[in-house]
Amino acid sequence: MDFETLTTTSGEWLRGSGPDSDIVISSRIRLARNLAEFPFPPRADDDVRSAVERLLRDELKRLAVGRNLLYLDVNTLEPLDRQFLVERQLISREHAETHGTRGVGIGPRETLSLMINEEDHLRMQVLRSGFALKQCWEEMNSLDDELEASVAFAFDDEFGYLTSCPTNVGTGMRASVMLHLPGLVLTKEIQKVFQAMQKMSLAVRGLYGEGSQAMGDFYQISNQVTLGKTEEQILETISEVVPRIIEYERRVRTALVKENREKLHDQVSRAFGILRSAHTITSEETMHLLSSVRMGINLGLVDGIEIPTVNELFIHTQPAHLQKIRKSTLESAERNVARAAYLRERLAGGGPLEN
Amino acid sequence: MDFETLTTTSGEWLRGSGPDSDIVISSRIRLARNLAEFPFPPRADDDVRSAVERLLRDELKRLAVGRNLLYLDVNTLEPLDRQFLVERQLISREHAETHGTRGVGIGPRETLSLMINEEDHLRMQVLRSGFALKQCWEEMNSLDDELEASVAFAFDDEFGYLTSCPTNVGTGMRASVMLHLPGLVLTKEIQKVFQAMQKMSLAVRGLYGEGSQAMGDFYQISNQVTLGKTEEQILETISEVVPRIIEYERRVRTALVKENREKLHDQVSRAFGILRSAHTITSEETMHLLSSVRMGINLGLVDGIEIPTVNELFIHTQPAHLQKIRKSTLESAERNVARAAYLRERLAGGGPLEN
Repeated sequence: MDFETLTTTSGEWLRGSGPDSDIVISSRIRLARNLAEFPFPPRADDDVRSAVERLLRDELKRLAVGRNLLYLDVNTLEPLDRQFLVERQLISREHAETHGTRGVGIGPRETLSLMINEEDHLRMQVLRSGFALKQCWEEMNSLDDELEASVAFAFDDEFGYLTSCPTNVGTGMRASVMLHLPGLVLTKEIQKVFQAMQKMSLAVRGLYGEGSQAMGDFYQISNQVTLGKTEEQILETISEVVPRIIEYERRVRTALVKENREKLHDQVSRAFGILRSAHTITSEETMHLLSSVRMGINLGLVDGIEIPTVNELFIHTQPAHLQKIRKSTLESAERNVARAAYLRERLAGGGPLEN
Repeated sequence: MDFETLTTTSGEWLRGSGPDSDIVISSRIRLARNLAEFPFPPRADDDVRSAVERLLRDELKRLAVGRNLLYLDVNTLEPLDRQFLVERQLISREHAETHGTRGVGIGPRETLSLMINEEDHLRMQVLRSGFALKQCWEEMNSLDDELEASVAFAFDDEFGYLTSCPTNVGTGMRASVMLHLPGLVLTKEIQKVFQAMQKMSLAVRGLYGEGSQAMGDFYQISNQVTLGKTEEQILETISEVVPRIIEYERRVRTALVKENREKLHDQVSRAFGILRSAHTITSEETMHLLSSVRMGINLGLVDGIEIPTVNELFIHTQPAHLQKIRKSTLESAERNVARAAYLRERLAGGGPLEN
């Protein structure tokens, strides 16, 4: 696998066939780790960054998944390629935008992403389709154990794992679930979800993490607390609350269909019709319409398109993806035209890309 | 031909292939005539109305076109059927709504409509596709002559033909051209056309005549003056002004394509996409979107649909048409659903109905 292969495939997390995948797009666990013997990235000079990068890169290659890892030198990547990886959920926005020696190892079918010299020396992410936090955690935990057998991570007996930012100290873990909640948005019930999450110290973010708008009715629920709780306790909190949100969204959808099936059918069908026929379309409108279509498929209101295709289109119509697919630099207005053309192509034929 | 045949066919005037039919939908001439020996309709009692109806019906049957005439007793028609004929431009709204003995004779392919006991004893209409006023007039004039050979029309040497309403006295003629002017509407230049028409004492009306909104960007230009001018003079005025409006509309369209082809293409394609996918749609939105599509076809921006189909859909998606086609009485909300279903059916297959 090389970088360009990414433009013609899509990650496992988009296949739309995991548990509860009508509503849960994906589950993710990430761990923040730092090497005990080096200053943490915010205080590291070029030499330190380079030494850390070399050391961790070699360690990653020694892992069981090491031989299947696509390793990219993020520092020498074109800005467009970095943005592409952000859109693909394979690196963070910070990792794309910071400076200095840094890299990322990407595992098979994009289920694994290992960032070196992000905010911490190592940020490990396991990403899976559907509601599969337990599976993510098992994979992540075994990877962490494997690494820890040969690497000394900064660890304090009282606090736990030490990290650059105090908000990650302890487990260094962020567990998150990406939910598609168009029904709750449509009925404005989503506010109640926000309030409930806040009370439980869970964070709600958009598709692209902190500060990103909840475009396409995507909401990412994750733990805010990393200190004073075990990984299992954190996972338990999220694993308890997510099924209740899923249930809430399903109930609202059922009520919408029952109360005004024709109106919903109309909204969904028009969304599909516009996506198939527009000649210029913004990313925002695309996400909004795809969201309607996605819900429509799950409610049996749309024919001729499947969830994996819609999931993919959310990502493949993002600015960097479009430019990589079209193999040219495009200004905003040009992208809107290219996006519409890409949507027409994909929605005329139908199926998802190979993955 | 019987009444029900009308629901599965459409008139010659919708075939979209007459002169300048990219912009001119149809041309129409109507003459108002009254029998000299009877009181005019507003002052006629039931016996008079019946006598007039009998006499004129017999006269119409004697005409060259008589044997091909579908004659309908408008007084005994269901309200829905009368509304259907109004939508079809075969009778006036007044003729549908008034009371008492009255009828209409409809000629082959709906090019001819002969109303008995409308505001005048006889209202004759010739309707043709495209810009064909001269042809309409020749057909109308020969019909008028043919009738006048055996019937005495109320005529005054000073004023000309006498009519119930003074606005028709003289020639009794109304010549009109139905124009499709989406470009002038889009650019708001249409106001200038209104002003120019007013100065020339020409009337501008919507698709369904006096008082009707200009839905679908249709504008009907007709003479207001019937007195003190010959038929030829009236026709000359309209025949001079219409080519200038056509030219104006074409110029605006060319400029729109030149300045922002992508945006126009987008608007037109989305309109087509929505018409093909909506599950509930009002008549107003339908007309608006069909108008975009119609212009798009003429500018080569839409594939897979032809002008006669669009022309037909403007009429066949009207309330009474929908109910006749669906063979059931439908409330407004039901009609919106039926309209959307009808549009999807027609636009999936494509072609126009037989005519």
